[in-house]
Amino acid sequence: MSTDQPTVLIVGSGAIGSFYGAILHRAGASVSVVSRSDYDVVSERGYRISSPLGDLSFKPAQVLRSVDECTTPPDFLVLSVKVFDDLDRAELIRPAVGPNTAIVLIQNGIEIEPPIAAALPSNPLVSALAFIAVSRVGTGDVEHKAYGRLVLGDYPSGAGEACKRFGDLLRAGGVNATVTEQVVRERWLKAVWNAPLNPLAVLGNGADTQIMLETEGGEALARALMQEVCDVAAAAGHPLPPESVEQNISGTLKMPAYRNSMALDWLNDRPLELEAILGNVVREAQRVNVPVPHLQTVYTATKILLADREQRKRGG
Amino acid sequence: MSTDQPTVLIVGSGAIGSFYGAILHRAGASVSVVSRSDYDVVSERGYRISSPLGDLSFKPAQVLRSVDECTTPPDFLVLSVKVFDDLDRAELIRPAVGPNTAIVLIQNGIEIEPPIAAALPSNPLVSALAFIAVSRVGTGDVEHKAYGRLVLGDYPSGAGEACKRFGDLLRAGGVNATVTEQVVRERWLKAVWNAPLNPLAVLGNGADTQIMLETEGGEALARALMQEVCDVAAAAGHPLPPESVEQNISGTLKMPAYRNSMALDWLNDRPLELEAILGNVVREAQRVNVPVPHLQTVYTATKILLADREQRKRGG
Repeated sequence: MSTDQPTVLIVGSGAIGSFYGAILHRAGASVSVVSRSDYDVVSERGYRISSPLGDLSFKPAQVLRSVDECTTPPDFLVLSVKVFDDLDRAELIRPAVGPNTAIVLIQNGIEIEPPIAAALPSNPLVSALAFIAVSRVGTGDVEHKAYGRLVLGDYPSGAGEACKRFGDLLRAGGVNATVTEQVVRERWLKAVWNAPLNPLAVLGNGADTQIMLETEGGEALARALMQEVCDVAAAAGHPLPPESVEQNISGTLKMPAYRNSMALDWLNDRPLELEAILGNVVREAQRVNVPVPHLQTVYTATKILLADREQRKRGG
Repeated sequence: MSTDQPTVLIVGSGAIGSFYGAILHRAGASVSVVSRSDYDVVSERGYRISSPLGDLSFKPAQVLRSVDECTTPPDFLVLSVKVFDDLDRAELIRPAVGPNTAIVLIQNGIEIEPPIAAALPSNPLVSALAFIAVSRVGTGDVEHKAYGRLVLGDYPSGAGEACKRFGDLLRAGGVNATVTEQVVRERWLKAVWNAPLNPLAVLGNGADTQIMLETEGGEALARALMQEVCDVAAAAGHPLPPESVEQNISGTLKMPAYRNSMALDWLNDRPLELEAILGNVVREAQRVNVPVPHLQTVYTATKILLADREQRKRGG
């Protein structure tokens, strides 16, 4: 790793990628991006990013049309594409990964690191969870609404030099970054909410949190689903605090009605991160032999809904 | 009960009601109907009913705008409205029920008889299940596509004179009618398919049987849901044959892809018989203390979906 200005390549320059790119730019890093769809606009005038932190607009050091165009491996390769089964993320980034490149995943879900760790075993692998409300509002235009905290750690555990340095950069850029030695456990903590309530909102045709929890039986169902996530986490070696379910329920009840990201993906006819968010939890449950009938039902019903959508698109 | 021409009043003259009205008319009964929405057309020219059995078109003896207009209680009052929580079916029919009127329910669901039995305890109460494919295709126009068999018996058990006579009329009119002494058990048998696959199709936005069973995990989910229905039935005193689940699955796999009635109700923005078809199964499970996590999840998710639809209609 170079000791002077750190270099960063953002792969997946949607809302999340361009926001954290801006933060790293603000911290003094040389930030390049891979952007195929927004290439022309971003090459010419960079990203426009409005934020409660101030104007975060920036021009990347380089804009690449594809990862193959990367000639000098970066110190940090930030991968922030959505996680879909039909995308081989390791092969996507491999052309830009040098021997000293630290790979930073800013992605949702459970067990999303193993394919990268297996394919690129000698690189530092930092796994990060974003707690943020940010949207792409147009070509090269991003609106950061609230939050921005990252929790990050090495996969599968620990927090090495690259991880700490990346955390320092984020803080220098103005966001809260918490380095953890147990990032897998942090992913399970986040999954307590995400795994149940993202797909349940999709089954509800984009139902918001208030509809989900206030419909008769909805809160009890949410608790049962969340408890199953906790049971799987514990059996997988990551026991969560006993109050996790209660905190997630009471926290959600206190929030204004909120339509989550998977619900928005559904309503906008985009692919869903169903496997990363819920499918991997169900598979982990099978591996550790924990029954998850509620999660299994939500998972399969959502797959049926997606299969129906595909059939309609094919004109069936 | 009169010994000459039997009199019938059909309350709920949709596709099911008018079809069986035609059958009873063909058997020689004097068939009157209550029809508010189709009053003008049906008064003038009766029902036009196409059927593989031949032309079943008929003119009712009387067409009433409401049950209150009934001056002479019929021998048989056939109730074939859909079963919704906000409709008091006993109060609906009470004005036409005389001391000797046999009440015949041709309706879907589990535990749909108790409110009628409680409100009108001294009348014979015949509970009937229709196995039929029939649709209303226009005002006073009905298309009978296939099947037509009824299974009927007295509620809660037995098969008295009125029940047998009604079965005889149906057979005389040309449909298969099986009189049972255990009609509640027959309802549970039908619920093995209906309770799981009707609402699951709704969660799948109208998914057909092929999509439901052939999506990865779909057949296993259907089996789990069906097994829960069998477990509840057994605990409620109605043990079903051990091969029930298997027969329902293999029978459905052999059928062409089929979109069930609740899926069609959903797609056509009509109310769903969710409580009669599934809600009452879940409540019976609670009463007999049988865990039904898969059914509970489908039930609550469907209620969330309906709550979301209601909120959208209110402009929320």
